[in-house]
Amino acid sequence: MSTALSPVLDRIDQDLPESLDRLKDLLRIASISTDPAHDKDVAQAADWLVQELSDLGFDARKDATPGHPMVVAKGGASAGTHLLFYGHYDVQPVDPLELWHSDPFDPQIEDTAAGRVIRARGASDDKGQLMTFIEACRAWLAVHGTLPVQLTFCLEGEEESGSPSLVPYLKAHADALRADLALICDTGLFDAQTPAITTMLRGLMGDEVIIHGPARDLHSGLFGGAAMNPARVLTRILADLHDDQGRVTLPGFYDDVPEIPDALRAQWDGLGFDPQAFLGAVGLKHPAGEAGRSALEMLWARPTCEINGMIAGYTGAGFKTVLPARASAKVSFRLVGQQDPHKIRDAFRAYVTKRVPADCRVEFIEHGASPASVMETSHPAFEAARQALSDEWPKPAAFVGAGGSIPIAGYFKTILGMDSMLIGFAKDDDQIHSPNEKYDLDSFHRGIRSWVRIIDAISRA
Amino acid sequence: MSTALSPVLDRIDQDLPESLDRLKDLLRIASISTDPAHDKDVAQAADWLVQELSDLGFDARKDATPGHPMVVAKGGASAGTHLLFYGHYDVQPVDPLELWHSDPFDPQIEDTAAGRVIRARGASDDKGQLMTFIEACRAWLAVHGTLPVQLTFCLEGEEESGSPSLVPYLKAHADALRADLALICDTGLFDAQTPAITTMLRGLMGDEVIIHGPARDLHSGLFGGAAMNPARVLTRILADLHDDQGRVTLPGFYDDVPEIPDALRAQWDGLGFDPQAFLGAVGLKHPAGEAGRSALEMLWARPTCEINGMIAGYTGAGFKTVLPARASAKVSFRLVGQQDPHKIRDAFRAYVTKRVPADCRVEFIEHGASPASVMETSHPAFEAARQALSDEWPKPAAFVGAGGSIPIAGYFKTILGMDSMLIGFAKDDDQIHSPNEKYDLDSFHRGIRSWVRIIDAISRA
Repeated sequence: MSTALSPVLDRIDQDLPESLDRLKDLLRIASISTDPAHDKDVAQAADWLVQELSDLGFDARKDATPGHPMVVAKGGASAGTHLLFYGHYDVQPVDPLELWHSDPFDPQIEDTAAGRVIRARGASDDKGQLMTFIEACRAWLAVHGTLPVQLTFCLEGEEESGSPSLVPYLKAHADALRADLALICDTGLFDAQTPAITTMLRGLMGDEVIIHGPARDLHSGLFGGAAMNPARVLTRILADLHDDQGRVTLPGFYDDVPEIPDALRAQWDGLGFDPQAFLGAVGLKHPAGEAGRSALEMLWARPTCEINGMIAGYTGAGFKTVLPARASAKVSFRLVGQQDPHKIRDAFRAYVTKRVPADCRVEFIEHGASPASVMETSHPAFEAARQALSDEWPKPAAFVGAGGSIPIAGYFKTILGMDSMLIGFAKDDDQIHSPNEKYDLDSFHRGIRSWVRIIDAISRA
Repeated sequence: MSTALSPVLDRIDQDLPESLDRLKDLLRIASISTDPAHDKDVAQAADWLVQELSDLGFDARKDATPGHPMVVAKGGASAGTHLLFYGHYDVQPVDPLELWHSDPFDPQIEDTAAGRVIRARGASDDKGQLMTFIEACRAWLAVHGTLPVQLTFCLEGEEESGSPSLVPYLKAHADALRADLALICDTGLFDAQTPAITTMLRGLMGDEVIIHGPARDLHSGLFGGAAMNPARVLTRILADLHDDQGRVTLPGFYDDVPEIPDALRAQWDGLGFDPQAFLGAVGLKHPAGEAGRSALEMLWARPTCEINGMIAGYTGAGFKTVLPARASAKVSFRLVGQQDPHKIRDAFRAYVTKRVPADCRVEFIEHGASPASVMETSHPAFEAARQALSDEWPKPAAFVGAGGSIPIAGYFKTILGMDSMLIGFAKDDDQIHSPNEKYDLDSFHRGIRSWVRIIDAISRA
């Protein structure tokens, strides 16, 4: 441990009650970004953060966008490693309100079997998480007067409503925001004892397929046998997207899918991930992906093709003997490595189009395309942060993957040209986006301590 | 032509305006069986028929059922062939009313490019058709004083609302209703010039399949790859129901499917059926069923398996990256020959169950089962009726199949032990069940003349 660190950790422990009070203040602001009735609350949360960061000596301001404002602040050392910290201060709506055990915007400290928690909308996603970083800065500044790194804050107010202003904002302010590395605090622990740095995020390509057949729904008695049924065409197309080994059959689909390095595989094997427990929580037992792959590999490092929705014909109660005029499906591909979402979309559409018989026509609707993010973990900050996290938590930190997409990491790479370290302290049972959201006080406390260790380690890396 | 026939045909021609007036009287009664607001109208239509049949000398009565009454009448010769005539006096609802060009219950005579028509709800389905038979009896009785056959009428008032009382009624009155042969007047001409006797009706087995997977919809990023997707399971099951020749793959499916006799095949080939025109009317071009079968064979004499509806996951606007908790499909099989619907259901369920992987379970919902009806055309009445129809219409009559089911023919066979001759004069463009229903005056006039020819021919067969 560096000599600078110990007094800061002590300061964090002493100041914890006040840190918690400040988090409560922020949680009391109902900053629901998707609901115009809460526009003033969103602005108030931005003002609150500007005030806090200004009080800590940062040059902080609220930048207008066509939507909700961006809170930007600069400070810290005048030289050395430059970090950009990203978090978001808006929250999800709270309905169904009747399922909450207390007011979502009146934070409560509760004792649970797994320890003390703070319960409120945004406690975990993302106000509790972003406050771990601000409180880490506060403690360091209180002890040392300045930070060992250059620091820029970029706190978004539209993350829960699709981030419509984010990309234009990043493009317009690229020079002001560019740093050596981004820290994104919107992810979770691997488990209650094991911190994680997310270094691989799968990409996503979504497409909707509509097979059009007869001009109208037909009577299956009068026409059945002679008339083309688009639902039959669609099920054949969808079924043939996978072979009997669970692999996707699109030509070239695996061309840009790398095998994970042996060292990473060994690390993942050491995590003690229990597929039965993971699947058991949702009523399943057997990993269902590619034959011969581990469950973690399936989730973090292998691409997928899934039917997210499909509909055709009569789907109400009872029975109606129609031949449907159309059948449609929403299909998405999770992407890894260097898979190009546009190339995959082209391959998918070519595959479908080839299988559409003479009496049908196909229509496609595009639903987004983002490549996978794979961080350059050879950057010394990654190893430094991993060691720092391992020092704080009961078990060593792991480089993990994430099955879902976190678009901000991709934008930082493509627009600002920098890698991101995704570090967060949320737990799987935090009920984010659901009633009774909570954040463990252990996540909050160790989270603050983790950040000072990480800042210290990176400054010396 | 028998000497008895000619004066009856003349009488029909002379009496046509009055026949039409009587049809109009019946059409003015809004006997919508499915709408309780019209219960009195349904009863009034029954009373009207009882009165008409009584006036003609039949022993007619209105028999109560738990639903709408059955009109039953007996009369005609005291010996000789005994015929049961079936028709229905209830009609479909009229909505959307705004699409009608005139009041659905104020019948209008209109000149169209294809000839004169009478336009009203029920004009074709089935009041116009059943009145062809009553008017035929009236003409014969007017000329000869009695009929050359024994005759029983069975006129239903619930055909358009699922015939809930029919089977119990037939069972309870089997002895009173049993005849040598049933005449069912609820079908159509093959084309405007070619009359038809429907001798093959496909059966139907409907089943709903629900594949249950995870306990709830899952995030396709967090779980995709490792978790079983029921939509994938379902599409594979549905796709594999057909081979690449369009044949159904259920084991034993074709065991009880006979090839049609050469003579019937030759008759069908001679009908000049134009698959392009038939499919063209609904925006299609290519017969899509079993390879190597003619379109008429596909429609009338071959069994099918069709997806009538399916649904899984998110089907609204936009995109939602869920792995659905369940996926379901409504599947129906049109049956021919001696195919046993219960055996086919068992085979289908065994086929599905075998393909459900460990992490899914399947639920089935039964949606009806009726075997195909194949009439014993060796009964001399069939050839007699075919000749009689050929004498009346521009082109020779054909024995045809029907792709849909007409349950009454099956009930007459299974409950009363008698075959049915399905003869009717409706045209494909009659818009039954739709706004602006009509019946061609040519159908009405030649229909009446057809029945006296048929009655005469059967009485002498």
